[in-house]
Amino acid sequence: MFVYEKKLQYPVRIKNPNPKLASVIISQYGGPDGELGASLRYLSQRYSMPYPELKGLLTDIGTEELGHLEMVGTLVHQLTRNLNEDQIKTAGFDAYFVDHTTGVYPTAASGWPYNAASMAVKGDVICDLTEDLAAEQKARVTYDNILRLSDDPDVNDVIRFLREREIVHFQRFGESLRSVQDRLDAKNFYAFNPGFDKNCNCK
Amino acid sequence: MFVYEKKLQYPVRIKNPNPKLASVIISQYGGPDGELGASLRYLSQRYSMPYPELKGLLTDIGTEELGHLEMVGTLVHQLTRNLNEDQIKTAGFDAYFVDHTTGVYPTAASGWPYNAASMAVKGDVICDLTEDLAAEQKARVTYDNILRLSDDPDVNDVIRFLREREIVHFQRFGESLRSVQDRLDAKNFYAFNPGFDKNCNCK
Amino acid sequence: MFVYEKKLQYPVRIKNPNPKLASVIISQYGGPDGELGASLRYLSQRYSMPYPELKGLLTDIGTEELGHLEMVGTLVHQLTRNLNEDQIKTAGFDAYFVDHTTGVYPTAASGWPYNAASMAVKGDVICDLTEDLAAEQKARVTYDNILRLSDDPDVNDVIRFLREREIVHFQRFGESLRSVQDRLDAKNFYAFNPGFDKNCNCK
Amino acid sequence: MFVYEKKLQYPVRIKNPNPKLASVIISQYGGPDGELGASLRYLSQRYSMPYPELKGLLTDIGTEELGHLEMVGTLVHQLTRNLNEDQIKTAGFDAYFVDHTTGVYPTAASGWPYNAASMAVKGDVICDLTEDLAAEQKARVTYDNILRLSDDPDVNDVIRFLREREIVHFQRFGESLRSVQDRLDAKNFYAFNPGFDKNCNCK
Amino acid sequence: MFVYEKKLQYPVRIKNPNPKLASVIISQYGGPDGELGASLRYLSQRYSMPYPELKGLLTDIGTEELGHLEMVGTLVHQLTRNLNEDQIKTAGFDAYFVDHTTGVYPTAASGWPYNAASMAVKGDVICDLTEDLAAEQKARVTYDNILRLSDDPDVNDVIRFLREREIVHFQRFGESLRSVQDRLDAKNFYAFNPGFDKNCNCK
Amino acid sequence: MFVYEKKLQYPVRIKNPNPKLASVIISQYGGPDGELGASLRYLSQRYSMPYPELKGLLTDIGTEELGHLEMVGTLVHQLTRNLNEDQIKTAGFDAYFVDHTTGVYPTAASGWPYNAASMAVKGDVICDLTEDLAAEQKARVTYDNILRLSDDPDVNDVIRFLREREIVHFQRFGESLRSVQDRLDAKNFYAFNPGFDKNCNCK
Repeated sequence: MFVYEKKLQYPVRIKNPNPKLASVIISQYGGPDGELGASLRYLSQRYSMPYPELKGLLTDIGTEELGHLEMVGTLVHQLTRNLNEDQIKTAGFDAYFVDHTTGVYPTAASGWPYNAASMAVKGDVICDLTEDLAAEQKARVTYDNILRLSDDPDVNDVIRFLREREIVHFQRFGESLRSVQDRLDAKNFYAFNPGFDKNCNCK
Repeated sequence: MFVYEKKLQYPVRIKNPNPKLASVIISQYGGPDGELGASLRYLSQRYSMPYPELKGLLTDIGTEELGHLEMVGTLVHQLTRNLNEDQIKTAGFDAYFVDHTTGVYPTAASGWPYNAASMAVKGDVICDLTEDLAAEQKARVTYDNILRLSDDPDVNDVIRFLREREIVHFQRFGESLRSVQDRLDAKNFYAFNPGFDKNCNCK
Repeated sequence: MFVYEKKLQYPVRIKNPNPKLASVIISQYGGPDGELGASLRYLSQRYSMPYPELKGLLTDIGTEELGHLEMVGTLVHQLTRNLNEDQIKTAGFDAYFVDHTTGVYPTAASGWPYNAASMAVKGDVICDLTEDLAAEQKARVTYDNILRLSDDPDVNDVIRFLREREIVHFQRFGESLRSVQDRLDAKNFYAFNPGFDKNCNCK
Repeated sequence: MFVYEKKLQYPVRIKNPNPKLASVIISQYGGPDGELGASLRYLSQRYSMPYPELKGLLTDIGTEELGHLEMVGTLVHQLTRNLNEDQIKTAGFDAYFVDHTTGVYPTAASGWPYNAASMAVKGDVICDLTEDLAAEQKARVTYDNILRLSDDPDVNDVIRFLREREIVHFQRFGESLRSVQDRLDAKNFYAFNPGFDKNCNCK
Repeated sequence: MFVYEKKLQYPVRIKNPNPKLASVIISQYGGPDGELGASLRYLSQRYSMPYPELKGLLTDIGTEELGHLEMVGTLVHQLTRNLNEDQIKTAGFDAYFVDHTTGVYPTAASGWPYNAASMAVKGDVICDLTEDLAAEQKARVTYDNILRLSDDPDVNDVIRFLREREIVHFQRFGESLRSVQDRLDAKNFYAFNPGFDKNCNCK
Repeated sequence: MFVYEKKLQYPVRIKNPNPKLASVIISQYGGPDGELGASLRYLSQRYSMPYPELKGLLTDIGTEELGHLEMVGTLVHQLTRNLNEDQIKTAGFDAYFVDHTTGVYPTAASGWPYNAASMAVKGDVICDLTEDLAAEQKARVTYDNILRLSDDPDVNDVIRFLREREIVHFQRFGESLRSVQDRLDAKNFYAFNPGFDKNCNCK
């Protein structure tokens, strides 16, 4: 179970509203490679993960990503506080505003509601960890692009923190994948799926 | 941010595998009225909620639903452990198995990946609370139906606990809605949206 | 069956084209909380509604919403008549134009085709009526937001009419829910589903 | 606007419950080529249709399809009345039941909620009529397949009526398309779109 | 199987970047009526097509559309090469950029990922050919609209080529449909489906 | 452009119809990790790939996957040839049959039409190659699961061929990723995106 701690993992303090920027940053809230998908991917994959330390890793990173989701939601919220009448008519934001006012809704920048089709749980150790490596890279690129689109130092400071965490997670998943390969038959990593084939000779 | 506590909110101990039952229960993992949608709805709505105690309520219930999501995932996992060759061919489960082995993936019973289109964040206090009342009822009915489909007492004990929590949440949201209406203009509850209209005379 | 009467429920006479406004109003045609979803929700729920007068209410409101759908379609059509070359290039409208010219297509403002995932039919009296209460609130907020985005008095007159009808429907559904609760076991409203459990002692 | 007349276009009187059959017939309620899509397609296309008699035809057929939608909903409802405990566990129907009890929800046989992506409104006379010809053929084939899957004469009588109407509509749309081509430049039917290009020399 | 030939079917040489135009043209890459859907529709329909020459036609046109898909991808790529910082912030393009940088992703202009719901394979000769006639018309209208939105002669030259091919394909499918009707029972074209009903008396 | 060669990459000769097996194998035609997604992913990523030899690799593998798509379609087609009346009623297959007869339609085993949301094009060399590594693993696991579900040696021979190719592709993408890393700044692989940042000092 989860316990909420009433603080952000890293502080978010945006001074200036910017609905246009909010409408691209929201992709890391509910977009294909955002924090919701990341968290849900790891927290879902852990059930079929046969090794306790990797189950723990997925739980830890999945829980941390829930905190990142909260940070991105806070960014979007602070960028859309106290908008005046002209600001709600900003091209790109108006389509969001008509359906959500200034609430925070899990959607991609394109306005597509979050869809779990963009994540995979295959119930196979090597495969799920490779999926996770790709997920971290995709999140990293999205943050790179937000930095290319944003001039607001308050925003960029937060985005850089989040981007850095993705790189750390990528490295953790890479080490885990190597440790799994060390346990498996070097001649055929795919001969058995230790998450499903119970009577395999895998450590 | 969130902290993971290594225990379930309520214990799940399933003795007998049952892939057919797992393939309907999963709707409360990733289906339209399941725990993922519930949690995501409340944790997303809180940003634009103007009243601190309601923001706190949404956070509390949203966090509890994350724990329920974990319980439903555990149910699905335990019902699909150690399946033999015939069991993976169970009609209904085979379509799930081919894409996810026995991993836990956020999908409806019909096999449709979780889609945030089934939840709303409108950025309006009265509206979002009414949405939440409906969400709790929809989850309650889904649990009713699982009880109609299941004969396994180990499963039913857990489902009854989860169902009961939805009713408690429904009551909490009902009380909150009444408290909000007490603060607003009795002649026209919708004259102002206290989450968006800053200079309204609302308490 | 349905009979078409060749007039709108309330007249729509827009003088000035405005593709930008059309591209947000269309969310009440095919968006998550629009008239199509409303009509389809009520006309679908009536089959499993066990009480004749509520079946009649769902049919009446569902049929009226079909007429509202037609009014919103007319609004979008009149706002996009006789556009010149520059107007079709309006940011936001161009993405719609390339796929639909100036036809009226059921989509959300974000460009997402209408998806029934945003509505529920649960086959349970209390639940379906609560869903309907939420639906009316969500439509009301969308109309509020259109009024915040629009300066055109011809448009706003129509939107205010439609918004007012949602509030009336909300009240009708609220009264219906109370009448249902009066018939059910006061100690446990959810002990039976009169739409499914045939041998319950419910009136 | 629409007026509801309290009778079906053609009577539906099913004696025997059959959830398995209901779960395929529902594709004509909310599936890709079903009555909802048909009705919505024609009622949406009429706004940009420049010729009054074709606008009238689209309205007439679209309104009739609303009545067919009601008939298909009635079929599904009557096939799932008074199910016993074993019947709700029927493979294929259980996935539907868990989320909708025995309510009628707009979904394809595969469990995918109705999605307007399966229909087109292109705002071009020749194109929209060709789309409509294809729509009628697709509905016809789906009814053919229901007849291949069903042994119930009560069901088949209704399906044959509905199938016959699709063929009649196909012929009406075919005649309309020819009448449009007669009005246009025989050398280049696509030189102008009479629904958009106002100053073309088309009759 | 397919062999790649390292040249485009028709040359694409765009001089000036134009992200706004790229973001509408992409609808012919991954939108509802684009080249991906066309190719996939024809290459999928051929399996159940009972007549060898029509199977061949579907293969030929489906393969040609793969080449058109490549041309549209090249258009989008060349229109988004070497963008400067301001250009990536273009309204409409920024939402695409944040998730895909300047990669080419199969999406509609509205940002909706390609969805096969917009195409049909019904396994019925007359029906599938009618679907194909509609598909060609829908693609033709989308190209018409791109020509209405674009002022770039380099782009328009390519679009005119692609549009012309759709008209040629439309004619080919029309001739094929007539040849099929000649083989079938003139009194009831739908009495048998030669792709499924093996013992029918059809040539 | 592409040229069709009238033979399969590897022969498919299925003797016995098996609609149940066809309805899971189809996930490799149009499911989240199937051959369509693979081909589309690689053929789309190549536009923004800055290195000619990797652009060539993506084209080669993407073209080969088109041939695999054709093989999987052939498998599904041969497994559903000449079905009798009982076979079309097979649980799981009937939902497919009602909408597609025995045509081959790009869908997941669960009945969800192919959706490009399950693939990514991020326009970043390292990221896109990591995505490709994950894609090959996901396809490999799906083939593993088909082998677990199938007892037909004719089918399994083909599936083993396809599975082996995924492992070869995985190795090719792994080598490519290492070669890219050799060209980039060893201290910060992500300092520049050679596909977008033109004036970086990368080889």
